[in-house]
Amino acid sequence: MNCIVVSIGDELLIGQTINTNAGWMGKELNKIGVEVTEVLTISDKGDAIKSALDYASVRASIVLLTGGLGPTKDDITKKVFADYFNVPLVENKEALEHVENFFKRYKRPMLPINRLQALVPKECTMLLNKVGTAPGMWMEKNNTVFVSMPGVPYEMKYLMEYEVFPRVIERFNLPVIVHKTMMTLGLGESYIAEEIRDIENNLPEHVKIAYLPSPGLVKLRLTARGEQKNILEETIDHLFDQIEAKVSAEVYAREEVSVEEVLGTKLLEKGCTISTAESCTTGALAARIASVSGASRYFIGSTVAYANNVKKTLLGVTDNTLSTQGAVSQECVEQMALGAQKMFGTDYAIATSGIAGPTGGSEEKPIGTVWIGIATPHGVVSERYQMGKIRDRVVEKTILTALGKMLSFMK
Amino acid sequence: MNCIVVSIGDELLIGQTINTNAGWMGKELNKIGVEVTEVLTISDKGDAIKSALDYASVRASIVLLTGGLGPTKDDITKKVFADYFNVPLVENKEALEHVENFFKRYKRPMLPINRLQALVPKECTMLLNKVGTAPGMWMEKNNTVFVSMPGVPYEMKYLMEYEVFPRVIERFNLPVIVHKTMMTLGLGESYIAEEIRDIENNLPEHVKIAYLPSPGLVKLRLTARGEQKNILEETIDHLFDQIEAKVSAEVYAREEVSVEEVLGTKLLEKGCTISTAESCTTGALAARIASVSGASRYFIGSTVAYANNVKKTLLGVTDNTLSTQGAVSQECVEQMALGAQKMFGTDYAIATSGIAGPTGGSEEKPIGTVWIGIATPHGVVSERYQMGKIRDRVVEKTILTALGKMLSFMK
Repeated sequence: MNCIVVSIGDELLIGQTINTNAGWMGKELNKIGVEVTEVLTISDKGDAIKSALDYASVRASIVLLTGGLGPTKDDITKKVFADYFNVPLVENKEALEHVENFFKRYKRPMLPINRLQALVPKECTMLLNKVGTAPGMWMEKNNTVFVSMPGVPYEMKYLMEYEVFPRVIERFNLPVIVHKTMMTLGLGESYIAEEIRDIENNLPEHVKIAYLPSPGLVKLRLTARGEQKNILEETIDHLFDQIEAKVSAEVYAREEVSVEEVLGTKLLEKGCTISTAESCTTGALAARIASVSGASRYFIGSTVAYANNVKKTLLGVTDNTLSTQGAVSQECVEQMALGAQKMFGTDYAIATSGIAGPTGGSEEKPIGTVWIGIATPHGVVSERYQMGKIRDRVVEKTILTALGKMLSFMK
Repeated sequence: MNCIVVSIGDELLIGQTINTNAGWMGKELNKIGVEVTEVLTISDKGDAIKSALDYASVRASIVLLTGGLGPTKDDITKKVFADYFNVPLVENKEALEHVENFFKRYKRPMLPINRLQALVPKECTMLLNKVGTAPGMWMEKNNTVFVSMPGVPYEMKYLMEYEVFPRVIERFNLPVIVHKTMMTLGLGESYIAEEIRDIENNLPEHVKIAYLPSPGLVKLRLTARGEQKNILEETIDHLFDQIEAKVSAEVYAREEVSVEEVLGTKLLEKGCTISTAESCTTGALAARIASVSGASRYFIGSTVAYANNVKKTLLGVTDNTLSTQGAVSQECVEQMALGAQKMFGTDYAIATSGIAGPTGGSEEKPIGTVWIGIATPHGVVSERYQMGKIRDRVVEKTILTALGKMLSFMK
């Protein structure tokens, strides 16, 4: 069972609004076994909408349109939609009552253009939009279902959840699809691919694998199609076991969850606290750790020691270390970690010091050189990394590597 | 001149990755006078790619593909791309050298599949991807230009900027378009629209205005089309003068530049230094200030005082303040700012304390309550804000408001 999503709106094409609706729809439709095979993002011009309807009608069983249903002149989807089915727009009693009540409730005067919101194509199934004034519209033609919805994300989501999904499930005989994602740290996509080549070459027909890389992190997604959910899940779990036995990357979860969330859960379980001492990550590591809801139970604080003097006075890095080894060195990062551990009174403290670029590199310590140190209850450990040349990515990789390293102490 | 963007990847269709590439491309292409008329988001299956190429070829002068160029098996764009033009894939010498150097530089072994990255369709113009291993590929057929690029955002952006835009500008006869952006802080888009309604209603025919809101910040972009660049620029500058005279929001720049960059320039000019003491922003404010290249010349350090005890012992917030006023209070944030100013020995120190949510609000201090304090050489000032209910947005608005407030001391 496949679906084409048609996202309507010039603001999407000129990049003023990012099309998050289509992603959400794809994710939610997948969960009920409907595959989104294409997303067409088009202008809110009549001929663009008409041509997208023609295109999608012969390629999909379900066509979902969002956008262009507002009360103003530039919103023409409804008119084009009705024309496409050769039916007139008629006032829907239930929709009109709802619009009237909507304005009564918010004590705002109802303007003539607002009344137009209650018009829907004749013979359509009107989908009542309880969180807005523009109703959804469900039509069928040659066994294809067409639904037009507003583009406002929470209105679209309301209609999908309460009106569209139940009808789609009732109307179609849906297959079962299971997706599972394995989260890995520390190795690039091609290394992982090399390590699990045999597994990948022998995947069952009904299972697909995808590599989703971002700086410092690769997600491996397995997708299985079939009839029985539990069997598909078992198949994937078994493959995940095989993959995990092969990859030398750090596998930190078998669901889509961030490292900081997993780390937070572990710290809570063990009743441990954490702090950071940051140079090249300049507070971004602390912000990442603290972004997890409830982090105040284990995250105590951080010192961003950008200037060397701060490393000395606040964290206790010695003059000798700074003058003989420099700030980007094993000694410095270990002293920083121990300094933060003591100052914040935490069980663990992570320290970072590196050259994020774009300037500041040398032959011995090129841009991207990063030392990460972790003070633990059993002493301090540290390691040197090469994180590439691009400032943002150096910071992002340093954060993920530090969190991954920290996680390894929680086992 | 129109363009169709083809975004390739199942991760986009199932909503695992949001298609931010297409938005960025639409925005940047617009600036050079190329209109994106459609975005097709499709699966990484051969027939889907083939059919998108067929569809786009008759509707656009420029077809830009992203995605599916990785070294792994699920990446098939290159093969389909070559087939579409009936040419074989051949090893490109320059691309191969680049891939080899890439692995040499990072001291990693080059695997056989990495060598495949140097294959490109025969007769294509190879676009050297200096920030990755997959080259871009430029082909022409029946006067339509086709470019295939990696889907990794920074690789795509690199190729667009350095290889695609210059070639598009040379290849096509594009109109002259001038965009200028005015950066404002502190007022929402509808307030600004109300204040400049008269100006907007009387805009010359060839000038368009766009409001680009993000949390805490609104960009006003004026776009003028015509024949002479300097005349268009004068028209926009004149309109900006009119707008700036009307808006009560803080206008901090007339170009797309971040507050932290402008602040950094001002601090350098005045030879002043800065530090932060952060509670609700948990290091993100420091990271933002330090994200500017060269920030080490004015940004000294930061204390993230997430736990109240840290506010006391490190920043000198008094027991009395914490017990009578609480951590989210004028007294606390002023003591934090003064504490950081002293501890880091800086001219200025910014402190934040607030309730970012999702929990922790009370009737007196609901979620979104934020105090920002700034210690200056002439004393400390502070102000209370209501930043809304959504955690990420509370943090983002706090950062921008704090930077904007700080900037007002630099005049």
